[in-house]
Amino acid sequence: MSMDRKRRKRGGRSRARGAAPGQNPHLEVPYIRRRIPPYEVLDEGSLERILAGADRILAEIGIEFRDDPETVRLFRAAGGEVRDVSANVWNIRFEPGLIRALLKTAPATFTQHARNPANNVQIGGDATVFAPAYGSPFVMDLDRGRRYGTLEDFRNFVKLAQMSPWLHHSGGTVCEPTDIAVNKRHLDMVYAHMRYSDRAFLGSVTAPERAQDNIEMCRILFGADFVDRNCVIMGNFNSTSPLVWDGISTRGIRAYAAANQGSIHLPFLLGGAVAPLTMAGAIAQNLAESMVGCALAQLVRPGAPVVLASFLVTLAMRSGSPTFGTPEPAIGSLVMGQLARRLNLPLRNAGSFTTSKLPDGQAMQQSMMSMLSAVQSGGNFILHAAGFLDGLLSMSYEKFVMDADVCGALHAYLAGFEVTEDTLGFEALAEQGPGAHLFGCAHTMRHYKTAYWDSGFTDDQTWEAWDEAGAEDGMARANRLWKARLAEYQPPPMDAETDAALRDFIARRKASMEDAWY
Amino acid sequence: MSMDRKRRKRGGRSRARGAAPGQNPHLEVPYIRRRIPPYEVLDEGSLERILAGADRILAEIGIEFRDDPETVRLFRAAGGEVRDVSANVWNIRFEPGLIRALLKTAPATFTQHARNPANNVQIGGDATVFAPAYGSPFVMDLDRGRRYGTLEDFRNFVKLAQMSPWLHHSGGTVCEPTDIAVNKRHLDMVYAHMRYSDRAFLGSVTAPERAQDNIEMCRILFGADFVDRNCVIMGNFNSTSPLVWDGISTRGIRAYAAANQGSIHLPFLLGGAVAPLTMAGAIAQNLAESMVGCALAQLVRPGAPVVLASFLVTLAMRSGSPTFGTPEPAIGSLVMGQLARRLNLPLRNAGSFTTSKLPDGQAMQQSMMSMLSAVQSGGNFILHAAGFLDGLLSMSYEKFVMDADVCGALHAYLAGFEVTEDTLGFEALAEQGPGAHLFGCAHTMRHYKTAYWDSGFTDDQTWEAWDEAGAEDGMARANRLWKARLAEYQPPPMDAETDAALRDFIARRKASMEDAWY
Repeated sequence: MSMDRKRRKRGGRSRARGAAPGQNPHLEVPYIRRRIPPYEVLDEGSLERILAGADRILAEIGIEFRDDPETVRLFRAAGGEVRDVSANVWNIRFEPGLIRALLKTAPATFTQHARNPANNVQIGGDATVFAPAYGSPFVMDLDRGRRYGTLEDFRNFVKLAQMSPWLHHSGGTVCEPTDIAVNKRHLDMVYAHMRYSDRAFLGSVTAPERAQDNIEMCRILFGADFVDRNCVIMGNFNSTSPLVWDGISTRGIRAYAAANQGSIHLPFLLGGAVAPLTMAGAIAQNLAESMVGCALAQLVRPGAPVVLASFLVTLAMRSGSPTFGTPEPAIGSLVMGQLARRLNLPLRNAGSFTTSKLPDGQAMQQSMMSMLSAVQSGGNFILHAAGFLDGLLSMSYEKFVMDADVCGALHAYLAGFEVTEDTLGFEALAEQGPGAHLFGCAHTMRHYKTAYWDSGFTDDQTWEAWDEAGAEDGMARANRLWKARLAEYQPPPMDAETDAALRDFIARRKASMEDAWY
Repeated sequence: MSMDRKRRKRGGRSRARGAAPGQNPHLEVPYIRRRIPPYEVLDEGSLERILAGADRILAEIGIEFRDDPETVRLFRAAGGEVRDVSANVWNIRFEPGLIRALLKTAPATFTQHARNPANNVQIGGDATVFAPAYGSPFVMDLDRGRRYGTLEDFRNFVKLAQMSPWLHHSGGTVCEPTDIAVNKRHLDMVYAHMRYSDRAFLGSVTAPERAQDNIEMCRILFGADFVDRNCVIMGNFNSTSPLVWDGISTRGIRAYAAANQGSIHLPFLLGGAVAPLTMAGAIAQNLAESMVGCALAQLVRPGAPVVLASFLVTLAMRSGSPTFGTPEPAIGSLVMGQLARRLNLPLRNAGSFTTSKLPDGQAMQQSMMSMLSAVQSGGNFILHAAGFLDGLLSMSYEKFVMDADVCGALHAYLAGFEVTEDTLGFEALAEQGPGAHLFGCAHTMRHYKTAYWDSGFTDDQTWEAWDEAGAEDGMARANRLWKARLAEYQPPPMDAETDAALRDFIARRKASMEDAWY
């Protein structure tokens, strides 16, 4: 894999495949430009009814805001109808169309810059960006089982992502580094992304002052002027469904927007618990909550980069447990894609979701159903693309390897194919006529270097060869692979002065506060 | 699962879910009527160029026919330009549009009748029918590993399919019963479908006289008049790619068409070996071969039911091994769907394909990519929907359970969702307003019985509960499940006289010939 990575830097397209598996230099890109159209599953009338449903929620029920008077002030000034619910709690209703009008200043696409400009990513439009899973308290591998994540695990996942040509973005909280105090983690996490990766990343937004710290670190890395003019960090902000935005999120959104940085506006909609269990209603609610977050960013700084987002989850009706990678959210993700295009906003949705506790058949079947919906929907920023296990409670080393390989296959999928005189290959069949094999024909020789996705994970041997080699299953193979890749890791170069400045900032911030675990 | 099956017979839709997992009576149907549109990936111009490419192959290279002068006579009479290649080998070229004109008599949809009329299936149009994998010489389970299939295995898979509410059709050669002589297997196989299932099935077409035997058995089961007027059996006929139809297939096609029975016309296109390795070319060739098979059936008996088919397979360029469940054929299957709609013919394509040797993460990831393409393409008859492992060399008991469960999830997927006042669920959110959960609201109570696919296979427990219960992986769970289901199997009732007549026919046919192993 590291070979592939080096090849890309040198301009892989002209180079041939070697004998080792997993070499697809012709598919390596900083982010995907989709060459197949998205899957349109709902008709126009249904889409309009969902948008009207979102408008009705905003106009007749309203959104509750907590602990952030400035956000309330901004929405009141923009025309929201504010009602006091209790001390520091407000309900704001928005007349139909008001929020959508506020979204008109939001960019349809923007660039998130990486410290290596070759790894800049486009967010929105025909671009798709894959990033690792986000937020698991536990990590898991075959050797040590499930355990709380540490900063070492965090660094490992940043390194594994950096080494994969099929991820484009370093993600954010790739696992919770639970060995670091909660009020200091955000410093170590963002430093790990900056130091061990040269791709774009997400900040940690568990408190507004932490969000601010991460932006300061970006000013050190990129320069303050550059940060004011460009998006170099994004934050993922959660609403408190149903229909609540609390102050921790809204103050974070305001901090990011004020600094011209990207904000992702994500409801976590567990149907039947915090959203209607009929998908149409969940999506209307999703739109209402996410659009309001995006609108807040526009009020703070018109033109600030924002991302509409959805995370649709079903429930096991017998137990009340959430279920991931199920069919209804897969359809829901496709519809979210249709709606994001109507709103002309970038979209984050779905990922490699599963409820399985091991990277087994269930895990990969559910992940594939979910992940295909994400890419078929035209989703732009696909967080949770690799490592997701156990309903997001665990980040799995083995599943990370499997998922990253699937991300590679999706590069080939989203490339579709062209129908030209050359690709129709008439000459290939005409060369020797009916009944003759095509192994050596000119058309085959011309295309074999770029034909077909070549997986670096799947086993394609004969049964006999596989059996003789030890009859390994996918989990054992992935276990070997992540260790081998981690052993090969080389950090991307970083200017020593910048590194020292970052370390100094972190040391000062850490010294300024006692450890806190909330 | 047998509970579900009984419930369906009694009209499951009105019944509530119980406490056991895997109960979705509201989704149980004899076959699926798709309620989401197919995925249109190629533009009109590209589709036209592929159709023109197929026409060019037929006009300028032609199709080779072997050992069947009657087929040559039929095509010559219809306007084909016949050229003798050698004794019993002919090349026939067809002017552009000729073959498509011959297909005008083919029905866009037809019904395949089952001995239980409640299990009749529609082939074509908005119908999707799932059937088990077809043709593996080996079977595999966790206890005994890989071994040659036997008649007992064959019966077991027929029984497992019959017990799943998520398969609609009993399939054909669910595994090769290698303990029975090759020239007599077709009798035991079709008898097993007739006796242990009450669903529709495929005949065995390894030789024209065997195809004829199976049709005779259908006349005993359904009555000769009924068989002449209705499709009660289908045969899957393979071309010998590239661009050859041999006499074993064409004589079988003629036998089926003459009897008004359904024929599926399948090229097996391993790209780079027997087809161009650019997908556009493989699909043009696929169309050329499959359309010619369908046209032959129309020449024998205009209006005979036919199915266009594709089986697109990629190659590992390093080893020359076929690879299954890869991204390019997934796109190819979607395009085949677009082309079948243009030709107004029913389509068979894809299935739960994989190259993995175990029902592990690789197996289910590849299967899901392939299977989703089949259903998203609008494919009508999805053979290989369950059990496929090891590049079709092995039929797996455990994967059968996993795949059948995925087939269930696809029932929910293909149902899509409606956007109505009710499903928008405004009242669910309005009832208690922002911040309140929705567990007990009226909308939730009204919908929870039919909300969300409830899997009978996936594990949705908490990690702690799963760990305490033995930390079982998907393979071990599937192993338990197939044994439990097989133990519960009850054969559907069959009239004793019919059964005796079938057994008598088989006995006479077997006595009439020596065992042969080819």
